[in-house]
Amino acid sequence: MDFKPSVLMSSVRSKRPLVHHITNYVTVNDCANICICAGGSPVMTDAIEDVVDMVSVSSALVLNIGTLNTRINRSMLTAGKVAREHGVPVILDPVGMGATPFRTSTVTEIIRRVRPDVIKGNQGEMGVLSGMGGDVKGVDSHGASGDVAEIVREIAERYGCVAAATGEVDHVSDGDTVVRLSNGHDLLGAVSGTGCMVSSVVGCYVGANGPSVDSVSAAISAFNISAEYAAKASNGPGTFKPALLDAVYNLSSEDLDSGIRRVVL
Amino acid sequence: MDFKPSVLMSSVRSKRPLVHHITNYVTVNDCANICICAGGSPVMTDAIEDVVDMVSVSSALVLNIGTLNTRINRSMLTAGKVAREHGVPVILDPVGMGATPFRTSTVTEIIRRVRPDVIKGNQGEMGVLSGMGGDVKGVDSHGASGDVAEIVREIAERYGCVAAATGEVDHVSDGDTVVRLSNGHDLLGAVSGTGCMVSSVVGCYVGANGPSVDSVSAAISAFNISAEYAAKASNGPGTFKPALLDAVYNLSSEDLDSGIRRVVL
Amino acid sequence: MDFKPSVLMSSVRSKRPLVHHITNYVTVNDCANICICAGGSPVMTDAIEDVVDMVSVSSALVLNIGTLNTRINRSMLTAGKVAREHGVPVILDPVGMGATPFRTSTVTEIIRRVRPDVIKGNQGEMGVLSGMGGDVKGVDSHGASGDVAEIVREIAERYGCVAAATGEVDHVSDGDTVVRLSNGHDLLGAVSGTGCMVSSVVGCYVGANGPSVDSVSAAISAFNISAEYAAKASNGPGTFKPALLDAVYNLSSEDLDSGIRRVVL
Repeated sequence: MDFKPSVLMSSVRSKRPLVHHITNYVTVNDCANICICAGGSPVMTDAIEDVVDMVSVSSALVLNIGTLNTRINRSMLTAGKVAREHGVPVILDPVGMGATPFRTSTVTEIIRRVRPDVIKGNQGEMGVLSGMGGDVKGVDSHGASGDVAEIVREIAERYGCVAAATGEVDHVSDGDTVVRLSNGHDLLGAVSGTGCMVSSVVGCYVGANGPSVDSVSAAISAFNISAEYAAKASNGPGTFKPALLDAVYNLSSEDLDSGIRRVVL
Repeated sequence: MDFKPSVLMSSVRSKRPLVHHITNYVTVNDCANICICAGGSPVMTDAIEDVVDMVSVSSALVLNIGTLNTRINRSMLTAGKVAREHGVPVILDPVGMGATPFRTSTVTEIIRRVRPDVIKGNQGEMGVLSGMGGDVKGVDSHGASGDVAEIVREIAERYGCVAAATGEVDHVSDGDTVVRLSNGHDLLGAVSGTGCMVSSVVGCYVGANGPSVDSVSAAISAFNISAEYAAKASNGPGTFKPALLDAVYNLSSEDLDSGIRRVVL
Repeated sequence: MDFKPSVLMSSVRSKRPLVHHITNYVTVNDCANICICAGGSPVMTDAIEDVVDMVSVSSALVLNIGTLNTRINRSMLTAGKVAREHGVPVILDPVGMGATPFRTSTVTEIIRRVRPDVIKGNQGEMGVLSGMGGDVKGVDSHGASGDVAEIVREIAERYGCVAAATGEVDHVSDGDTVVRLSNGHDLLGAVSGTGCMVSSVVGCYVGANGPSVDSVSAAISAFNISAEYAAKASNGPGTFKPALLDAVYNLSSEDLDSGIRRVVL
């Protein structure tokens, strides 16, 4: 393969893309910090009076519905629409999709009105979104019903986006190619917000390199390979999180390119 | 004594209870992470459109008024009412009770309309709630006026709940039995949100084992014994917090059962 | 020089000032924790029904517009007005000033109606506020156009406050004296919210010692000297943050007084 994720990582680090997040209040700090460590510049404003001006000068917009409410949903739709008009790529993280009707209808409305460039969820959420079925309890995935490769391919084709389903193994598709990634560590499942953090890193890579299977894959792999290093430097979920931020910040091109476990299906 | 807190801990870890939090934006991330480390699955949604569906499938509901406002208070009352209808136990953390009239009236209204199964505050807050008097400045306790054992017994009896007052020494009562717990470490007082984190752990234990003096005591002890280990692995409040998460995650049955300092009064 | 910042630090630690923050949801937890580590007692309530009672008993009020919205702006103006009436010093952190019209107009309104005792921003924000020009992208500073010493002197004189501009080098002025501080570490720029954290430490020092060039300088220096120690105990931005909290908590009088790099211009 000719895929060199380090080229995309270098682009993030040199361009320092401004990544506008409208996100949840649980993991917002982790998203800001992982964004910096990955090479981006985060901004998290969600006031309707502020988002239009902010997103207009941003390189990417990350919409995360982890703790949605009507005020923030309105800001998401407004910012998303303006992002599209300005050619700013939009990443949607449909947190808890399928867990409640409010979440499901919010995701549906964002997809219909904003047409995100990237949709990235866990396997359960993406299973629900595909219509093939997924099991979501609270904001945790308990897996998808069908073949995950087919789930992301179907979502990508239907919505004209890059779709990614994360889990022990990750799948990314643009409706044509499907890529399977298998880096990472079990401790990622023991820290709140690692899924949100991946979306922020995707925001950095897409902001600097445009939306594609390669840029989304590189972002996920950079994060997951860093997690492998972080696990060695930690004693549990508490020390794992700071170690993960360190590892993303310190990740070398060689560690990324040689560490990636990626198969084109 | 026959009390084996490790049995209750094992139950949490095997059942992985979904613990719905409606909580403050200061310590929400710590609550989510300690909940995972203790063995639960946290969800923190607070939108009125979302809480009914979420709490209906949860194993416990934690209401924490640390940064209350009218929007969130309405969600708390709605979620609390639905929790009662579904038999989902409710834990109330009356943060800053007594510090301002708005906090006092909010707590009073939640107790009246939701009838929480567990009320857990610091000594100052519980002193105020009991009517015997407590000293609360901001969200910090400066102690209760009366005998804390009597304060928790009185609150438990009056409201038909399990009451817990935390501090250097912790007291738990169901209106009949009063238990005194004396594990922990001074560094807990130098980290924002350790009281909130205890409430989340209580949510896990009550979610898996039902509300009782034993389940609340086991939760508090698991947290405080972990703090003793964490203190040895840290250099101050900053490194103490990740070490505390690690310690809760790694706590063994033996460490819990042999470490507990508990007296039935 | 006769300036002994440790005297001011001791005063914070012995008085334990209650510092009321109305702040953003991104870095609020870090602000609470650094406030404790610096010697203060933080409270972060922002409900309009709660802020008047809380600020009346506080020693300082920190207003931070990082994630402003109309609800919170109203609370800021109300709390700020009450703080003035009660002689509680107000610290304004104009996060992202200049990045969007909403931020600029909010800062202008707070200054006009609250008359803060201290205004502390990064160089870009303070450059914009001074009218001499500054470059702000998102919430990051890309520097000021003019001489920063002149910028803070001008702002301090115009608004009758202590003005501070932070960056690689920090400047503080009361409109008469201008002080240049040059402690700190590059990793501060790789962690979200270090600027917010400085404002919280300033809140502690001003709460205990009153607003002056000396108290603001001592706060900034205590934070930045701690950062120098923290950098030695960390492997990147992730482990730097807990190490920074530890270092602020453990900072000795001797380390502060001997470590300070301060020039009166």
